[in-house]
Parts: sequence; C-alpha cells; structure tokens
Amino acid sequence: MSTLRLLGAAARAAARTLALLPAAQRTQALHALAAALRTQQQPVLAANAADQAAARTANISEPLAERLLLNEQRLAAMAADVAAIANLPDPIGEIFDERTLPNGLQVHRQRVPIGVLGVVYESRPNVTIDVAALCLRTGNAAILCGRSEALRSHLALGAVGRSALASAGIAGGAIQLVESTDRAQLLELLQMHDCLDLLIPRGGNALHEFCREHSRVPVITGGVGVCHLYVDASANQAAALDVIYNSKVQRPSVCNALDTLLVDAALAPALLPAVVARLGAAGVAFRADPAAHALLAGNPAVRAATGADFDTEWLALVLGLRVVSGLDEALAHIAQHSTAHSDGILTQTAAHAARFVAEVDSAGVFVNASTRFNDGAQLGLGGETAVSTQRLHVRGPMGINEMTTYKTVVRGNYAVRA
Amino acid sequence: MSTLRLLGAAARAAARTLALLPAAQRTQALHALAAALRTQQQPVLAANAADQAAARTANISEPLAERLLLNEQRLAAMAADVAAIANLPDPIGEIFDERTLPNGLQVHRQRVPIGVLGVVYESRPNVTIDVAALCLRTGNAAILCGRSEALRSHLALGAVGRSALASAGIAGGAIQLVESTDRAQLLELLQMHDCLDLLIPRGGNALHEFCREHSRVPVITGGVGVCHLYVDASANQAAALDVIYNSKVQRPSVCNALDTLLVDAALAPALLPAVVARLGAAGVAFRADPAAHALLAGNPAVRAATGADFDTEWLALVLGLRVVSGLDEALAHIAQHSTAHSDGILTQTAAHAARFVAEVDSAGVFVNASTRFNDGAQLGLGGETAVSTQRLHVRGPMGINEMTTYKTVVRGNYAVRA
Repeated sequence: MSTLRLLGAAARAAARTLALLPAAQRTQALHALAAALRTQQQPVLAANAADQAAARTANISEPLAERLLLNEQRLAAMAADVAAIANLPDPIGEIFDERTLPNGLQVHRQRVPIGVLGVVYESRPNVTIDVAALCLRTGNAAILCGRSEALRSHLALGAVGRSALASAGIAGGAIQLVESTDRAQLLELLQMHDCLDLLIPRGGNALHEFCREHSRVPVITGGVGVCHLYVDASANQAAALDVIYNSKVQRPSVCNALDTLLVDAALAPALLPAVVARLGAAGVAFRADPAAHALLAGNPAVRAATGADFDTEWLALVLGLRVVSGLDEALAHIAQHSTAHSDGILTQTAAHAARFVAEVDSAGVFVNASTRFNDGAQLGLGGETAVSTQRLHVRGPMGINEMTTYKTVVRGNYAVRA
Repeated sequence: MSTLRLLGAAARAAARTLALLPAAQRTQALHALAAALRTQQQPVLAANAADQAAARTANISEPLAERLLLNEQRLAAMAADVAAIANLPDPIGEIFDERTLPNGLQVHRQRVPIGVLGVVYESRPNVTIDVAALCLRTGNAAILCGRSEALRSHLALGAVGRSALASAGIAGGAIQLVESTDRAQLLELLQMHDCLDLLIPRGGNALHEFCREHSRVPVITGGVGVCHLYVDASANQAAALDVIYNSKVQRPSVCNALDTLLVDAALAPALLPAVVARLGAAGVAFRADPAAHALLAGNPAVRAATGADFDTEWLALVLGLRVVSGLDEALAHIAQHSTAHSDGILTQTAAHAARFVAEVDSAGVFVNASTRFNDGAQLGLGGETAVSTQRLHVRGPMGINEMTTYKTVVRGNYAVRA
C-alpha cells in the first residue's frame, strides 16, 4: 500500500473514533492548540523564515509572498481564531428539522461529521491551523496537503496541532499531513474515494480544473473571485468611496477583494477621479474601459483595459473600471464576468437594491457593504475552510455547520407504511 | 454542436428564465400537469403497453417488469403526487438564517434553484413526471434521460409535461428529454459542466460507479440500499413481525425494502420460525446464516447464506437472516454490510435505541418503524428526486428544499471591514 493510502486508511479509522468522542474532549484539544500557538512560536517562525528565504530566491510574486508570511501578530491572530472556535457550540449531534408527522412518526435530523476531509493548499500557512481546528470542532478527520513553498511552515504548524491532540488524548491520526503534493500524488488522492469523503482544493483555477477533471471524490471548489461593486446613480458618493477603498485595498491578495468597479454614467465624472485619487494614493493601478479612460485621461496610474482584464481576479492592487448606463448594464456585465463569488451594489434606491439581490446569483450579494465581508468569521459562521463558488452543499464561506452532514432519525411505535 | 450540447444550452437558457418566474406561474403549470395526467392517459398507457411487450420479449427480470408497469391507478397516483407538489409552498426566494451581526450588518440566506439538473433513469417511467414536477416547483430546468426499456413511456409522459408547461406560458426548454442514453452519450453529458449543475444517476451500482469515475459535473448517487432491521431482545415480537413484514413485502423492488434481518439470539428460536411462516406465505425466500439455518432446518424456503448474500440488495422477495449475540454484534454487522441507506432497530430498551441512533451512521435510522418510510413523500419532504447515500448536500430523500441552493445577502450602511 502506498504512503498516501496508508495515511488515508489511518484518517478513516480516526474519523470513526472522532465522530463518537464527547464534544468536551475536542474542545479541550482546541484550547490546547490555541495555547500552543502562543507558547511554541519559535519553531514555527523559524520554519516560516526558511520558507520566505527560499521564496525570495525563487523570486515568487508579491501576492504569494504576502500570503506566505507568518509573524507574531499573525500567530497571535491564529491563536485567537482557534480559541474562538473552541468556544463555539459544538455542532455534532445537534437536532434540527424536528417534527411529528400526521401518522404519529417522530422525525428529526441530526448533525454528524462529513468524515474525512482532504484539503490541498494555497500558500497561506495559517490554513493548516484553520482547517485542523475547524475539523476538530466538527469531528472530521483531515488530510492536509501543504504546498511546496510553505512546506516548512506547514510541517511546523502540523506538529503543533498533533501535540495539542495528544494532550487531549486524541489519536494523531485525526490530522494527517501530506509532505508534498505533486500532481501524481494529487491524482492518487483524487481516486481515494474509500478513505476520503470530500476534497477541497484551495488555489488557482488550474488546480480546481485538475480536481474537477480527475476526482472520483466529491470536490468543493471556490476561492476564485472576480468581484464587482456597482455604484448606482443614487449612491452616497463619499460613503461609496469608503466601501470601494475597503473592498480593494484592505487585503488585496484574497478572493473577496474587489476586481471591477462599475459606475453609473451620471456619477462617473465626479466619482471616478475621486476613486483614482484615493485608491491611487494607496498604490492601486487601474484598467479602464473607454468611457472611464476618457474621464481619467492623462493619469499615469490608469491604463486602457484590454482583452481579459474584466475576467481577471487581480489578487493585487489593480482595479478594473467601467462606466455603465445604469442597473441593466451593470447586471449584464456581472452576469457575463462574475465568478459568482462576491458582488455588490451601492445605492439609496430600495427598488434597485431589490432587483440586484433578486437577479445577481452570486454566493454573496452585498448591498451597501464591502465585498470583504464574504468571509466565514466576518459572517459569524465560526471561521471557514473555503469559500465555495459551486452550487451544491455550500455556497460562499464553508463554516462549521457546512462542514457537517446529517442523518434522519425516525421513531414510531412499530409503525408500518400503509 | 452535438444534439446533446444544443439541448444542454437550451436547458441553461431556460433555467435562467425559470429562476426569475413568479411562483404562481410554476404552480399553474403543475396543476395543468396533474390535470393532463388524468385526461391524457390513453397515449401514455399505449406507449407503456408497447414498452412492456418489448420487455417481455427481451425476457427482463420480474423486479424490472414491476418497475416498468404503468396503469390507470399508477397514473392517478402520479397526478395526485403532482397536485400535492403544486400545493406545496414554493421554496424559491425563501429567506432563512436571518440575523443581525454585532457590527449592524443584516445577513440572511435566500433559496435559489440549483440550475440545470440531469437525471439518468432506472426503468420506472413515473420518474419522468416526478422529476419534472419537482424541478418545476423548485425553478430548476431538467435534462431527463430515459432508459431504453421505458423509452416509449418516457417520451409519452414528457410530451404531457411539455404541453402543461406551454399551457402556463413556460418555454418547453425547461424540460429536455434525451431520447436514448447509451454510455457514449452519458459520457458526453458527464463532461457538460457548463450547462449542467448536477447529475443524478438513478439505477444500479454500475451506473453510479461509471458516473463517479467519469463525471466533471457534481453527482448525487444513491438508491442502492442494503437495509437492515435488528430485533433487540426486548422487542414486542408480534409488533416486530408486522414491521418486518411491511419492510420486506410491501414493495420489494425498491431501495428502502429490507434486505437483512438481524435477530437477538434470545428471540431467535421463537421469532425466526414466525418470520419464515408469515413472510414465506407471501412468497419470500430466505438466506440464513448457520445459527438461523439450524433453527429453521428443513424449511424449503430457507437456504444457507453464501458469500455475498449479506452484501446484496435483493430488490425482490428474498431476505437474509442472521442471529446475533446482541446489540454490539448487530452494530458490527451493519457497519460492515450496510450501504448507509436505511437501517433500524426494534426494541423496548431506550438505551439500546439511543446507542443504535448514535452509532449507526446511515442516511435514515429507524426506531420501531419500517425502513419503507425512508421516502421523501412519506417523510413530508414533498416527494423526492433520489435517495442519496452520499454525504454532501443531501443524505436520504432529496425533497424540494434539497433541490435548491442559496445565496447569502448582506446589507449594511456603506459598511467597511475593520
């Protein structure tokens, strides 16, 4: 049996045990993990420094480098996130949709873990801890596949995680670390439907495509967000500018950051120069359609948009700009270019907000709010393992409830079907 | 473009329109469909008679022939089911998980259709109407792939469905009929992820395996039920006998029918002969483990169980029998042999019921109730498109809520993320 299959079998066995453990024991492990992230920082930071040095040598891109970074603040934030997850109500065993049928049958649904979750990473090393903690809270075993540029950080964080499990008397099999993930290994993982219930690829389009094409395991894909804000004619311009700034600049390297701004033609002459001044000062470069370009002539930060610009997830300080004739044109642009991740409208017109909410079929639809809120922790879902842009099981942030499934329990008095 | 891709593109376009139609228009089409099933029976029955004649010539199995049959009673039952679906509250647009976050953001989830559903059939022709009606209620477009032995019935019923759509002013593209489904066509369908959001294969294990292996479209598989009842030592024997009879005999050709009966050793000497007498009179044959076989010696309906008998979904009047030493052995047998579809316990001991419910991780877990209740209509879910034995999105009957997905709507007052 290959290393990967042995590891899968161990995860499957651990999942069976984990599903029946008392919630308190999993809570104890989570508190131990939060503590360890505060007290065992040195080996993790050293490993991350080595990853960063190798990344600089390999000349990786700026967004990738930003994702790779760990420091004391980020470790403290991770510890706080884990502590928050420890304090969440345990979802396992929760009873819902309880009802008594006319024939007297008592029916309810009861939350159970999904089983074994595989996660293939992007370069953000905090994902190792996020996913491990969320899996622990939800009684799922995890197979965590670090990406090569973050591998040292991944292994150091994984060691912290397994020591926390051990301190709560939970077998280490519940968190399995895959030490490298080349495509051959990934292909093997994608065939392991007997030991893997769900695979979550976190990364670019190419990884998602590869998984969709080759997987015999259910896959939840997402994270690719070509995100839009439409500024309606009635919007409060000063307030809109704050939301645009926040959506684009607050953390440009992530999937819910703004990619394209659509501005009603009535507002464009005043608003677009203000956008370019405010965001430009933060280092944003712009790709403008002809109408926007005409209004911004001569600004060196503004280039004419070309071919695929409006289908690009920038993950950087770049913003597409387009002037639209109104709500209809904005809706048409979004229908054509959105990846159905996070799209919003800024407006004072209730009817326009209502139409936008009804017609934009994206995972997250925002009215007068930053696209950056499309995040499990921000929306109160208890963190997230991914942001799904598919339509089944979960859309948008995959929080703790979305990491469970259910069984239906039916009780009768020796009831028979008529 | 191939016929299949043209049809897929038409379904995709229809889905976009359908999702925004008022509920009343879809309700009107459903009432028209119910009426048409009552008034346009002759062409459907003639087509079904031709399918049946061809099936007899091809010497198909008894369970298959039973599934294929349509008659006036079954058409009337189908019409009643459609009328019931017409009267269900429309799920589309329903708001749930509504909450205001500490920062003032108003968040809710809102049900939307999945989009385009493909269903590949088993031979029961009523599935054409069931699925079309459920898709209409839930705003989904459908691509319906009939199986060759039921093709005439499928096309006749599809024509009824499309006439009902037309009478409500809904474009026929919302229900697409594939006229034959050989493996080459199925393979093409499984690649059509741009026009298909979900594929539901209904049929045997080989079909499910094929779909899991080749699909780039999310697949919900299910319907293969190796179902168990365990009769605990404390069960009321006379009442247990009624549940066993109902689970096995009421409709043996379907997936939630009983396959294996596990009997506590203390009850076996009295109960097993009673089971064999009562079910044997209804034509049931038995496959007994050595202990059960010893208790039933000489009964011509009882054979020794061999190799795969306890892993067989009988779909016929055959029942596996095994004597177990108690709850532990019953749980171990179920963990090893169940397909996690429908498993139950018959007991008066609350602690045993509780352990069975906690430890049996099947889609439907039954306490003192027939396994035949694992059905969308019986459980009040408004019918079903499938019974899922997978863990994501839906487990057990896929009723109308499970045929939807959701978007998250976030409203603020020009809110930005801190």
